[in-house]
Amino acid sequence: MNHLKTRRSIRHYSDQPVDTSLLHELLTDAMHTQTMGNLQLYSVIVTRDEERKRQLQALHFNQSMVSNAPVVLTVCADFNRVSRWAEQRQATPGYNNFLSFLNAATDALLFTQTFCNLAEEQGLGCCFLGTCLYMSQPIVEALHLPSLVMPVACITLGWPDENPPVTPRLPLSTIIHEEQYVPFSPERIDNAYADMEALPENQHFVSINGKETLAQVITDLRFTEKDNLAASESLLHTLRKQGFME
Amino acid sequence: MNHLKTRRSIRHYSDQPVDTSLLHELLTDAMHTQTMGNLQLYSVIVTRDEERKRQLQALHFNQSMVSNAPVVLTVCADFNRVSRWAEQRQATPGYNNFLSFLNAATDALLFTQTFCNLAEEQGLGCCFLGTCLYMSQPIVEALHLPSLVMPVACITLGWPDENPPVTPRLPLSTIIHEEQYVPFSPERIDNAYADMEALPENQHFVSINGKETLAQVITDLRFTEKDNLAASESLLHTLRKQGFME
Repeated sequence: MNHLKTRRSIRHYSDQPVDTSLLHELLTDAMHTQTMGNLQLYSVIVTRDEERKRQLQALHFNQSMVSNAPVVLTVCADFNRVSRWAEQRQATPGYNNFLSFLNAATDALLFTQTFCNLAEEQGLGCCFLGTCLYMSQPIVEALHLPSLVMPVACITLGWPDENPPVTPRLPLSTIIHEEQYVPFSPERIDNAYADMEALPENQHFVSINGKETLAQVITDLRFTEKDNLAASESLLHTLRKQGFME
Repeated sequence: MNHLKTRRSIRHYSDQPVDTSLLHELLTDAMHTQTMGNLQLYSVIVTRDEERKRQLQALHFNQSMVSNAPVVLTVCADFNRVSRWAEQRQATPGYNNFLSFLNAATDALLFTQTFCNLAEEQGLGCCFLGTCLYMSQPIVEALHLPSLVMPVACITLGWPDENPPVTPRLPLSTIIHEEQYVPFSPERIDNAYADMEALPENQHFVSINGKETLAQVITDLRFTEKDNLAASESLLHTLRKQGFME
């Protein structure tokens, strides 16, 4: 996994298709990821059809990589299949609750990330669409997801047609806490974000948006309280409709 | 990542320590995982202290791998650090809501899985403790997690001292849906679970538990509705206490 040191999200893809046999091999290998009680609480919807990709793109805030990518994967937390199995085997499933959603979402996200690591190791490029959680209800409808199935990860996949720079990350010391969580002093916050704030592209980003700080770009433009509250309502609504909040 | 085809969870570890330099290298590489808006919405609590491991083990349903492992990692969804940063930079954070919890949990779980892929590639063994979601409140207290920090993944880590068989998985056709979700017919459920149900160890498992079907072992003993409902209540309680449900 040496590719990881230079990995970056890929949003532009070449015309080369992603072979079904390769896709299936990668998904099969990714299934070795740990899973709760070996239940594999996830499903993958594979979108290749152009019309369906355009439909999904409209839901994903019209991000062009959705229709540009040869393959779009929507990975779902899925307790429907296990519940159907139980009902067919004289067993009474009890998975229409919030814990079960988070258990299945965990399974789905771990599986997704192993898949991304495998795909990127093969030279494929991926982009993880955070919009999945913002638009859960229309995605449920577009993909005909039944009860106890929730979309939690959308991935665009294809052979890279761009070579973007690697995105710098925070210092490891910012992420790690030894033995217990150590609250951040103002000095430690300053040190953690100093390099990120000094990057020319981030300073440009602050300037063109007419803001004073990079943090203001995040809070006022990119991830606002207003959007977060609306999306929280909508997510909880979808979770209830999908039967996960009984 | 050829190791994946033979990966399995490891619950018994040798006395060999996990070097801090190796651990830090793996965590640093794992930070290249995609993250929402490059915010890295996670923190890792590293537990090595024997007394603290025993304390955590008691919370994790007394599973012995917790104190047996040289290192225990608790990966948390963390919007505390970003919110502190925002407050220090004349910005108003708005992340005390359910969407922000799921965004941070997603970041944390993707990061966790890349870490596991990397660690296992190095020959280390991991076990993902699902108990993390069942015991969130006492874990929050034991690790002194502040507001907007929630534990979402606990990993025991060490050099393997066992060689368990690879766990079989469902057929890929059970997991994949082309273009839209296809509801499971009774025949497709039978086909999906036939191999799993025929395994001698699973048949033994059904028999020693006095059950009729493998599904009944899952619903009546391993993941019961009663436990799920209690844990759902407790999870939502912790999410409210940690400030993620405003």
